Amino acid sequence: MTIPKLTEVLTLSNTQIAIEAAATVAFALSGLIESARKRLDVVGIFMVMGLSAFGGGTLRDILLDRRPFFWVAHAGWLWVLLILGIGAMVFMRKHHFEPTERAMQWPDALGLGLFTAGGTQIALDSNMPIMVAVLMGMVTAVFGGVMRDMVCNEIPRAFCDHQPYAVCSFAGGWVMIAVQYGGAPQWVSLVTAAATATLLRLLALHQNWSLPGWRA
Amino acid sequence: MTIPKLTEVLTLSNTQIAIEAAATVAFALSGLIESARKRLDVVGIFMVMGLSAFGGGTLRDILLDRRPFFWVAHAGWLWVLLILGIGAMVFMRKHHFEPTERAMQWPDALGLGLFTAGGTQIALDSNMPIMVAVLMGMVTAVFGGVMRDMVCNEIPRAFCDHQPYAVCSFAGGWVMIAVQYGGAPQWVSLVTAAATATLLRLLALHQNWSLPGWRA
Amino acid sequence: MTIPKLTEVLTLSNTQIAIEAAATVAFALSGLIESARKRLDVVGIFMVMGLSAFGGGTLRDILLDRRPFFWVAHAGWLWVLLILGIGAMVFMRKHHFEPTERAMQWPDALGLGLFTAGGTQIALDSNMPIMVAVLMGMVTAVFGGVMRDMVCNEIPRAFCDHQPYAVCSFAGGWVMIAVQYGGAPQWVSLVTAAATATLLRLLALHQNWSLPGWRA
Repeated sequence: MTIPKLTEVLTLSNTQIAIEAAATVAFALSGLIESARKRLDVVGIFMVMGLSAFGGGTLRDILLDRRPFFWVAHAGWLWVLLILGIGAMVFMRKHHFEPTERAMQWPDALGLGLFTAGGTQIALDSNMPIMVAVLMGMVTAVFGGVMRDMVCNEIPRAFCDHQPYAVCSFAGGWVMIAVQYGGAPQWVSLVTAAATATLLRLLALHQNWSLPGWRA
Repeated sequence: MTIPKLTEVLTLSNTQIAIEAAATVAFALSGLIESARKRLDVVGIFMVMGLSAFGGGTLRDILLDRRPFFWVAHAGWLWVLLILGIGAMVFMRKHHFEPTERAMQWPDALGLGLFTAGGTQIALDSNMPIMVAVLMGMVTAVFGGVMRDMVCNEIPRAFCDHQPYAVCSFAGGWVMIAVQYGGAPQWVSLVTAAATATLLRLLALHQNWSLPGWRA
Repeated sequence: MTIPKLTEVLTLSNTQIAIEAAATVAFALSGLIESARKRLDVVGIFMVMGLSAFGGGTLRDILLDRRPFFWVAHAGWLWVLLILGIGAMVFMRKHHFEPTERAMQWPDALGLGLFTAGGTQIALDSNMPIMVAVLMGMVTAVFGGVMRDMVCNEIPRAFCDHQPYAVCSFAGGWVMIAVQYGGAPQWVSLVTAAATATLLRLLALHQNWSLPGWRA
């Protein structure tokens, strides 16, 4: 038996699948916490988990006319989501874990970065203009949460809470474009973009940055 | 003139069209009743009827990348919907029919079963994995109502009222998979799945079954 | 250098692009005014502008399975939108311009007419049945606003305020069909349809026409 070299395992395709998977779990957890706070029933909880996890990527794929979706090509992830949800519910009940807004911030920031990188790359691979590619990265990262909030009958937080969120994704997307135009290998640009968006988001939360509004 | 034999008329394609048509009428009526309760104007009434009737199937077809939609291939149904709506409005006004939540339950349960069966079969025909096929049946059956509630600015009842609804569709879909794997002809599996979902829903309403929630 | 003749510039394709562009700017402005009234943050403002401007056409293209979208093929328009938004925000702040509901009516009525004409024509070009084509014109014209209202967590005004809006688009679409069946050139039917829908809308506002509701 031969052990594959790191460079073989780290092919772009594998990296992309790993990124999409990690972001999916991160957003699913944030959706679980959110729907728990909303006291939805078990169907609502799984639906909001699913929308948070797969909604952004699915919308991106519909816009790009890409098939199959991530959750169709890798249908096993639906089972992962189901088991993850049940496991988390049992665990949280047992430990009297009260899901707070703070508890959502870390997985959410991580998912934001990972989906930004993955979504922008996929749009570039589909020969989109760079402005559209950056937007698609943002759609991937942000619209899962937008759908989550719309289903929960709220104005999407990303549009009205004056905290930088979509803006971090937007910045990450442009960093990715810049790094790739600078000639770096694709996995470097993916990691850089994801790190930029995630760190900007965490920094924004920590420093209480505020977006301007109509007359802020 | 020769009279066609039952087995000829009951080709799968005809059965599927009949199922889709019956479910469409059932959901259109439930949409009409709902929008009447919301006191929407006439445009809103027809839109909510249309979303309830065609929304789930259209979303399924977008996800599966199927064209043409049912209401494009059979555009006559749009006229049926228009006439049905006008007729029902005139009739209900004349007889001082007060649309209640109970009045929605029967057509809604019927539509749930029929769309579950039709949607799952269509997804199987598109070579989806079985978990995805069952989900597509559920999307077909449930998301017309979800869109109806979202347009009416409510958290979708299917996600928060603790009554089994999507779960009945989910069960019906798995029954369909099981019956087909058991070797029964397709129309048997379609009828069984539709009946399972509809009866489970009616039973759940009658027995006041309740879904668990976060800490129900 | 030769100056192109009017008939050359006025090819159907150019006319259609001009119509789509004018309607896009009109709806973007109406979206800007609406999101300003809602006190969204800067991300929300641009998102609602984008949804209002491109939402209806994008939904139409998804339903018709047309690619690329207007804003992908002409990605420069995304920059126009960005600059338009920033410019309008600076201008309005400086002049203490208070965005009122009345201020939205003119660009909105113009956008309604232009998108109705453009959307119906595109659906006819895709060989849709005429009823579907008229509906697609209506979707193009109305669903940008519907998405805007849904994101802003309101029942879409088009469905509940008893003012003729979608109905004006519907009428404009049928006028277009009639004019084309009468043998007039396409640009005549486009202009007639756009003018019909826009004028009907302005007339309806001015005369306080009211749609029937459930028991109006």
